[in-house]
Amino acid sequence: MKQIKLDKINAIAGQKISKHTLNKKLSSLRERMFALQHLFYANADRSMLIIFQGMDTSGKDSTIRHVFSCINPLGVHAYSFIEPCDKEKKHDFLWRIYQQLPEKGRIQIFNRSHYEDILIPSVHQSLNKDLIERRYDYINSFEQELVDNGTIILKFYLHISKKEQNKRLEKRKIDPLKKWKYKKSDTTESKKWQDYMQAYERILNRCSSQVPWYIVPADDKQYRNYLVAKTIVDTLDHLKLKYPV
Amino acid sequence: MKQIKLDKINAIAGQKISKHTLNKKLSSLRERMFALQHLFYANADRSMLIIFQGMDTSGKDSTIRHVFSCINPLGVHAYSFIEPCDKEKKHDFLWRIYQQLPEKGRIQIFNRSHYEDILIPSVHQSLNKDLIERRYDYINSFEQELVDNGTIILKFYLHISKKEQNKRLEKRKIDPLKKWKYKKSDTTESKKWQDYMQAYERILNRCSSQVPWYIVPADDKQYRNYLVAKTIVDTLDHLKLKYPV
Repeated sequence: MKQIKLDKINAIAGQKISKHTLNKKLSSLRERMFALQHLFYANADRSMLIIFQGMDTSGKDSTIRHVFSCINPLGVHAYSFIEPCDKEKKHDFLWRIYQQLPEKGRIQIFNRSHYEDILIPSVHQSLNKDLIERRYDYINSFEQELVDNGTIILKFYLHISKKEQNKRLEKRKIDPLKKWKYKKSDTTESKKWQDYMQAYERILNRCSSQVPWYIVPADDKQYRNYLVAKTIVDTLDHLKLKYPV
Repeated sequence: MKQIKLDKINAIAGQKISKHTLNKKLSSLRERMFALQHLFYANADRSMLIIFQGMDTSGKDSTIRHVFSCINPLGVHAYSFIEPCDKEKKHDFLWRIYQQLPEKGRIQIFNRSHYEDILIPSVHQSLNKDLIERRYDYINSFEQELVDNGTIILKFYLHISKKEQNKRLEKRKIDPLKKWKYKKSDTTESKKWQDYMQAYERILNRCSSQVPWYIVPADDKQYRNYLVAKTIVDTLDHLKLKYPV
């Protein structure tokens, strides 16, 4: 299998499509998703887990807000994983993940995920290498178990360039609508860019055989949203669901 | 305080507004809600709990789907309470409710709620009267605690007439888009209409002083959706939120 090298992958869209066209496409994809989700809920024989990972400012929150802004909250939940709290730290790292898994008929969105438990210890060297190494296998086995049990998993890596991140961090510092999101740690973490890229490459290479990653060019927000929505709708379409009798 | 008698309250809208106008109003209320919810999330100093109760077919699911079809799933969650499972039954009735309460900055929707724990035992006489009686006080105190802790609670009773319920149950039996929702118990429960009305009246009368109930005329779906959306938007508007600095 070909090794993924993130600096060889373009963070901007391959095709040039106008903002207007992309927004129109997104809008009709959202309508289609609303209908498909209701079918998924009515059938209640499978569940869906949608994972978003990506560097700070890559647009995890924003993608979720735009792609899923036309859904039924009874059928679609989103959960943001932040740094584990003291209680969570006293458990195995998958303990808190298990609690947020979707039941049959539901779609669960993970804003960050169990991959943070490889990423952060790798970059901050807060866990010995051997233990980190084992987590790749735990995660592969965990995801395989979910798939075997009828969960459809979609994993999106939102791929932005360093240049674009710098631009967005600057904006976050001054824009009155974004300022509340800015944390000092955004800047310190941004300096570890190269370490993050290495850790992400390893994740993308090691954890793609059971459930593949979608690497989404994310410098262009409209294209990013469109691509994510299209992938989800195509996946749901492919199930060819009908209302149960 | 005047006693509420449900058969004295109209289940159809007082004013006559066209379907088209109501849908247009709903659509702009949804847009406003989307913006206000983001402010609520950004401020993260209060939480909001929105409770829906009502007879079968009164449109709890459908109201949630229509009113909240334009929201950010990171900030708004919905939870359906079904009959307590064995594990839940081994706990105090508020135990499972506590687990679904919204954290600050979030809006939580309850599709049915702790009021089922008065309603069902009252109608089915499955708990002695004394114990049911105490639950009114427990609930009043519970809601008061939440309010004191910064939770805004909105309680909607979706009020339909017996005639409208009969019509909707018939439709549920034959409409291929609704058939999957039909359960035999819908018909048996429907025969206990008068007992349900009595139990609901008692709830509306006993549990309105701390947190008032909104009795929503629900025979007309468009008016019902509009009224619920309007109440939520007005409540959020009233907070006069600004983005934090």
